[in-house]
Amino acid sequence: MSQLPRRPGRSSPFLVALLALGLVFPAAARAQADPLPSWNDGPVKQAIIDFVSRVTAEGGPDFLPVEQRIAVFDNDGTLWQEKPAVQGAFLADRVRALAEKDPSLRQRQPYKAVLEGDVDALMEGGEKAVMELFAATHANMTQEQFQAQVRQFLRTARHPKLGRPYTQLAYQPMLELLQYLRDNGFQTWISSGGGIDFMRVFSEELYGIPPEQVIGSSLETKYEKRGGKGVLWREPRPDHLNDKEGKPVGNDLHIGRPPVFVAGNVRSGGDIAMLDASRQRRGPSFQLLINHDDGAREFAYPEKDGASLRAAREGSWHVVSMRDDWKTVFVAAP
Amino acid sequence: MSQLPRRPGRSSPFLVALLALGLVFPAAARAQADPLPSWNDGPVKQAIIDFVSRVTAEGGPDFLPVEQRIAVFDNDGTLWQEKPAVQGAFLADRVRALAEKDPSLRQRQPYKAVLEGDVDALMEGGEKAVMELFAATHANMTQEQFQAQVRQFLRTARHPKLGRPYTQLAYQPMLELLQYLRDNGFQTWISSGGGIDFMRVFSEELYGIPPEQVIGSSLETKYEKRGGKGVLWREPRPDHLNDKEGKPVGNDLHIGRPPVFVAGNVRSGGDIAMLDASRQRRGPSFQLLINHDDGAREFAYPEKDGASLRAAREGSWHVVSMRDDWKTVFVAAP
Repeated sequence: MSQLPRRPGRSSPFLVALLALGLVFPAAARAQADPLPSWNDGPVKQAIIDFVSRVTAEGGPDFLPVEQRIAVFDNDGTLWQEKPAVQGAFLADRVRALAEKDPSLRQRQPYKAVLEGDVDALMEGGEKAVMELFAATHANMTQEQFQAQVRQFLRTARHPKLGRPYTQLAYQPMLELLQYLRDNGFQTWISSGGGIDFMRVFSEELYGIPPEQVIGSSLETKYEKRGGKGVLWREPRPDHLNDKEGKPVGNDLHIGRPPVFVAGNVRSGGDIAMLDASRQRRGPSFQLLINHDDGAREFAYPEKDGASLRAAREGSWHVVSMRDDWKTVFVAAP
Repeated sequence: MSQLPRRPGRSSPFLVALLALGLVFPAAARAQADPLPSWNDGPVKQAIIDFVSRVTAEGGPDFLPVEQRIAVFDNDGTLWQEKPAVQGAFLADRVRALAEKDPSLRQRQPYKAVLEGDVDALMEGGEKAVMELFAATHANMTQEQFQAQVRQFLRTARHPKLGRPYTQLAYQPMLELLQYLRDNGFQTWISSGGGIDFMRVFSEELYGIPPEQVIGSSLETKYEKRGGKGVLWREPRPDHLNDKEGKPVGNDLHIGRPPVFVAGNVRSGGDIAMLDASRQRRGPSFQLLINHDDGAREFAYPEKDGASLRAAREGSWHVVSMRDDWKTVFVAAP
């Protein structure tokens, strides 16, 4: 994936210590540098910086030991664009590839609906149709084969409106936030409704988030011998669905301690439970909710029932207006 | 858990850099220090040191970048004793507590069998009996309540024959191996058939392995509101069983890249698939299998069908004889 933006560098222990010794960078100059240059000055940016300062202030009332500094981010619509959902575009791409090999699929639902972009027909098929599509495009192959297909897709596909590779449609302000949190001792995790094995293909290079810190939905997987070789085989059955109330469950399964900084976005209500769960812990926590209100630079889309913004008001979460809070939206072209 | 042995210290970035600068410890002296003092000199110890040297030798043919240095350890019988299995002792302890509140359990199977140590009666009950016991002792409560019970058990329980708290029955040579691997840039993980939430109570303090690097069996968990508070609720149904072929699956789900150093033990064949899976990756890997052949200092027990030792021969795994390879078995009393 040579077209990816440079992966945010993780500080080496050596550099950290040189900084601590004052050998590299005068502390005063460091404190003055803006850690979030793509964020407009305003209440959300200020609240983020205040929170990080409070929980890292040794001896302060809100100090968190480094092992408790767990930050969790939704992916689609929170770290990169979600119109269209990239995994949906991948699925459609795979259906097209299957139809080239087997043209009879063009006349058969739910494949026909995908090939013709017929959302109504897809909806009619319901959950059964969706599972059939996932089975045909995401399962009945090894983990390795699947991830090679995802890699290939990300190398070649372009966003239908914006014309750039999907991996160039990460949000620059959020990359800065991830780096800022890591610089302050936070572990940064993804917790997404998307496929765990799909995201692991690009999370490290794109976000600096290693595979072991990616949480997502999964298919049943089996370890078995095929052709004398042990492989992880993807079965055509869902295992964990990491959405809504499934997110705090997935987070606990993978992390085993409660996140203190949690970010999601307005669209489907999929992040409400995870943001709410982070407020149940004793001690400080921070909830960030991104509102897609920037039709000029990205997309403007509300949530049908308004549940996420209502939960934000009730829970005093911090709502990001993409239009007002972000100087730039996407990472710079390479 | 004040009776735990001191947790193996993880090097601070500051200390690492001071070492690198040669300010603290002359490099020559450090290289000469034995990283595995509780291991007798012999082929297994030598093979471990050779492997770690090879994969950390920059520019060498087997060099592994630090993010690929993933080490995975079984827990029961590999990192601490398993006669009896500690989680089984916890289960029996909970059944006794339940029977105090509800004496009718003393006459009812499978509780009666547990209270009377009647293994035959338990076996007769089969899987159904086991699940009923887990439901009664491990489920229908919040994650927090469960872990508080485990913590309380570990504080008070003693090994029936050895008379020490279970947390003092970790293997000293394995603690040294964990630390040695971490000192060489490895992530150390647990992958056990035991309960993930059970092990997370003690893994960090006992082994220096944080909760997010613990993989195990799990019950279904739901996030729901109880008394106005969001909680993780443990349902009385198994989710993932992290044993045998389930281990490579659990490892992939949590880690997302193949382990290169994997350790298990002879008893049930539960680690064969995970050790085998680590040989399927391209590049160097190391398989360690512990044989419990030390009736004097610990316990001597063979495996009924001999499958683990047979797989070790076929796969050229490194077999540890506890009797011959270890100078000491358990951590020193505090």
